[in-house]
Amino acid sequence: MRFARQTISVQEAVDKWLAVLPTLATEQVNIGEAYGRILACDLHATHDLPHFDRSPLDGYAVKAADTVTASVGSPVALRVIETVAAGQVPAREVMAGCATRIMTGAMMPEGADAVIMFEQTQNPGEQSEQVWIKRALQPGDNVSRRGEEMAKGTVIAQAGERINAGTIAILATFGFSRVDVFRRPRVGLLSTGSELLGVDEPLVPGKIRNSNMAMLSALVAEAGGVPVCFSGMKDELAPAKNKISEYMQQVDVLISSGGVSVGDYDVIAHLADDPDVELLFNRVAMRPASPTTSMLVAGKPLLALSGNPGACFLGFELFGRTAIRQLAGEKGVKPPIIQARLAVPYEKPCPYPRYLRGKLMEQDSVLLAVPDFNDKAGNLGTLKDSECFIVIPAGGSGKAVGELVDVLAHAAPAWRKDG
Amino acid sequence: MRFARQTISVQEAVDKWLAVLPTLATEQVNIGEAYGRILACDLHATHDLPHFDRSPLDGYAVKAADTVTASVGSPVALRVIETVAAGQVPAREVMAGCATRIMTGAMMPEGADAVIMFEQTQNPGEQSEQVWIKRALQPGDNVSRRGEEMAKGTVIAQAGERINAGTIAILATFGFSRVDVFRRPRVGLLSTGSELLGVDEPLVPGKIRNSNMAMLSALVAEAGGVPVCFSGMKDELAPAKNKISEYMQQVDVLISSGGVSVGDYDVIAHLADDPDVELLFNRVAMRPASPTTSMLVAGKPLLALSGNPGACFLGFELFGRTAIRQLAGEKGVKPPIIQARLAVPYEKPCPYPRYLRGKLMEQDSVLLAVPDFNDKAGNLGTLKDSECFIVIPAGGSGKAVGELVDVLAHAAPAWRKDG
Repeated sequence: MRFARQTISVQEAVDKWLAVLPTLATEQVNIGEAYGRILACDLHATHDLPHFDRSPLDGYAVKAADTVTASVGSPVALRVIETVAAGQVPAREVMAGCATRIMTGAMMPEGADAVIMFEQTQNPGEQSEQVWIKRALQPGDNVSRRGEEMAKGTVIAQAGERINAGTIAILATFGFSRVDVFRRPRVGLLSTGSELLGVDEPLVPGKIRNSNMAMLSALVAEAGGVPVCFSGMKDELAPAKNKISEYMQQVDVLISSGGVSVGDYDVIAHLADDPDVELLFNRVAMRPASPTTSMLVAGKPLLALSGNPGACFLGFELFGRTAIRQLAGEKGVKPPIIQARLAVPYEKPCPYPRYLRGKLMEQDSVLLAVPDFNDKAGNLGTLKDSECFIVIPAGGSGKAVGELVDVLAHAAPAWRKDG
Repeated sequence: MRFARQTISVQEAVDKWLAVLPTLATEQVNIGEAYGRILACDLHATHDLPHFDRSPLDGYAVKAADTVTASVGSPVALRVIETVAAGQVPAREVMAGCATRIMTGAMMPEGADAVIMFEQTQNPGEQSEQVWIKRALQPGDNVSRRGEEMAKGTVIAQAGERINAGTIAILATFGFSRVDVFRRPRVGLLSTGSELLGVDEPLVPGKIRNSNMAMLSALVAEAGGVPVCFSGMKDELAPAKNKISEYMQQVDVLISSGGVSVGDYDVIAHLADDPDVELLFNRVAMRPASPTTSMLVAGKPLLALSGNPGACFLGFELFGRTAIRQLAGEKGVKPPIIQARLAVPYEKPCPYPRYLRGKLMEQDSVLLAVPDFNDKAGNLGTLKDSECFIVIPAGGSGKAVGELVDVLAHAAPAWRKDG
C-alpha cells in the first residue's frame, strides 16, 4: 500500500472526505457563548420589529395636517402637551394644534402621524409650552412604523449559519437568551515521529522540536474545533495502532501529522493495511502535501497530514478546516477558492497542481496574488506571512503575469493596499 | 454642546482617537495561549534551521561521485551499511561504494553528499544489503543543508505582530514555550437608555430589548479585547456620571451605546460639558453614526456609539476595533479600507459620506461591492449578512455601476463566488 498509491484530484479527495463526516449532536448555549457556533435550527421573529410605532429622532410628534402651511418664513405654532422619553408610554393623545415632545426611539402618541426634528423648529427648549414648526410634513414623515423592519414570524436566521456579531444582535432583540447550536467538534491531534522533541526540550543532534502540534492546535481552535492534544507517538507500528484506536474513541476526528510517506517507519502509511481500516485516499494530485491520507478507522475519520510543516498547513486548510466546519453543522462547506491575477510570473512546469503560499493584495479593485518565493514546503519562516495558497495548474509551463489563478484564501485574509 | 457640534472627517476622527490611546503593559503567556495576541518583543532564531544536514525524503544517502555512470539501463550497485530513521544519529561514515538507507528528516551520515529517493533505485527492500542506483546525482542533490532555511539569530517575528498559527509553528520550532505579549485590553461596555430591557425580559409597550450589549460583547472579543459588561444605565445625568467614572477605573477603554444625540436625556452628550472631560469629537462626517463621540474622562478614553444598532456597528468597526488593536500593541493600526467596483448604481446625493452595508464578491479577480438595499441604519435583520461598508462619498449624485468605491471590510470577509 505504501508504494502502490492511487492519485486522486484535490476536488475528489475533498468530496470523498467530507462525505464520510457526520454532523454532530446539538446543544443549547447562552447567547453570550453563541458567537462562532453554528445554528442548529431556523429562528423566527417573535414579534413585529419595531413592535410599536416610534420616532427615529429627537423632535415633536404632530399631526401632519397641522403643518401644511408651515415654512421657515411663516412657522406654525403648536402647543406642547407632553414629553415622551424612550421607554415611556405616551399618556395623551395629540389633538389638532398640539404636539408632543418626543425622543429618539420613543413610542408615538395617539393622534400624531409625523415627527419634526428639533432643528426644523423654533423655540425647542425643554420647558417650552409652545413650539413653532418651520416645515410642512406629510403623514408618516419620520415615523418608524410597527413591523416596518420585520414582521412577526419572519425567518431571522437559519440552521447551518455561523453565528456572528450581527446574528447575536438579532437574537438579543427577539429574546433568544439561549440558542440551539451544534456541538463543537472534538479534534484529536497526534504527531508521529521519533525525531520530535517537546517545545521546552533542549535540542539534540538529529532531533527537532514538534511545531505541528502547536500549529494545528491553533488552527483547530481558529476553525471552531476543540483541540485535544495527545502525546506524541514513536515510529513503532504495533503500539501506534493501539494508541490511535484508543485516541479515536475520545474525539470526533483525529488529525495526525507525519508518518504518511514511504519510509520504513511511516506508521500511518502502514496503518492503511489494517483490516479494520477503510482507506479513502493516500495520494492527492498536489504539491506539496501529496501523501495526505484519510481513512476510516473502525468507522471514525482520520486525517493524516504530512509531517512537513508547510505541507501540514496546506493539508489542514484543504481537509482539516473543511472537516471541522462540516462536523460543526455548517452548510455547503467547501474550500474557499477565489480568483486573482498572478502578480509575478511563475514559469515552471508542474507535474501536479502546485499550491504556492503567498499574499493577496488589492489594486484598483483587482485582486493580485503574490507568491512567496521562499516557498519550500518546509519553510517555516514565511508560514506566518501567508494569506493564501495560489494554485498553479498541472502541465503547461506555469503562469504569466496577469493570468487568472485560483486562490485558496485562508480564513481571515489581512487586506492590505499595495504600497 | 449638544447642538453646537463641530463636524470632523472620519479620517481626522480616527487619528484623533487613536492618538490618545496608550499601549498596554506586557505579560508572558504559554505558547498554547499566544494565538491572536500581539508580540511585545522581537524574537530571533535560537539555532540554524535545520540545525543539521538532513534528508528531505526517503531513500539512500550516497557519495554523488559513486553515481556518475548510473542510469536506468546501467544502475550502479552500492553496499547498504546502515539504516537511519528520523531522530537517530548515524553511526557510520559512508565510504566509496557504500550507501546508508535514510528516512525523511533523518540526519545525513558523514561522507555522504547526496540522497537518491527509493523510487530511483532497484532493490530498495528494508533488509537489502545491496541497492542499485538508477540515476546520476550531483553533490548536494536532495540534501537540506544546515541553516538552509534560516541562520541562527535571524529575526523570526517582530514586536507589534499578531501571532497566528504560522507564528506559533516558528515559536515552537525555536523553543519559545513562553512568549511576551501585550496585555489584552479590558473593554467596558455600557448601554444607556431607559427603554432597554434585558434579553430574557418580556417585551412591554415602548421598550425594546438591548441588542447592542450582546453585539458589542461579541465584537470586542472578536477584536481581541476582554469585554466587561456593566449594568445598563437609565437616562439620568447625575447618577450616570458617577457610574461612568467608577466603571472607567476598571477598564482600559469604555464603549457606550446610546445617549449621544440631541435628546433631553442623552446623558453622554451632556457628559461632554463636564470640566473633567476632554471632548475629542462629537460629530463625524458620515451617515449613519454621525453623533459618534469620543472623549477623555479623567484621562481615560471613552467611545460613545449611537444607540441605533446599525450605527453602533459601524462606529465600532471604525473606532472600537481599531482602538482594541492599538491598545493591544498592534503596529500601524488603521481601518482596513480597500477598493471595489460598485455592483449596482447608488444614485442619491449624499451630504455626508454614506457607509452602506453590503457584501464583497469576487468575479474574475475583480472585487464587487454589493450594497444591501434594506440598509436603514437601524435594520437589524441584515446586520449578520454584512461583510463590508461601502463608502459613497459626499456631494455629487452617488456612484454608477462599475465605479471604484472605498470599502471598509470587516475582520473576516466570507469569500464567495458570484453565482
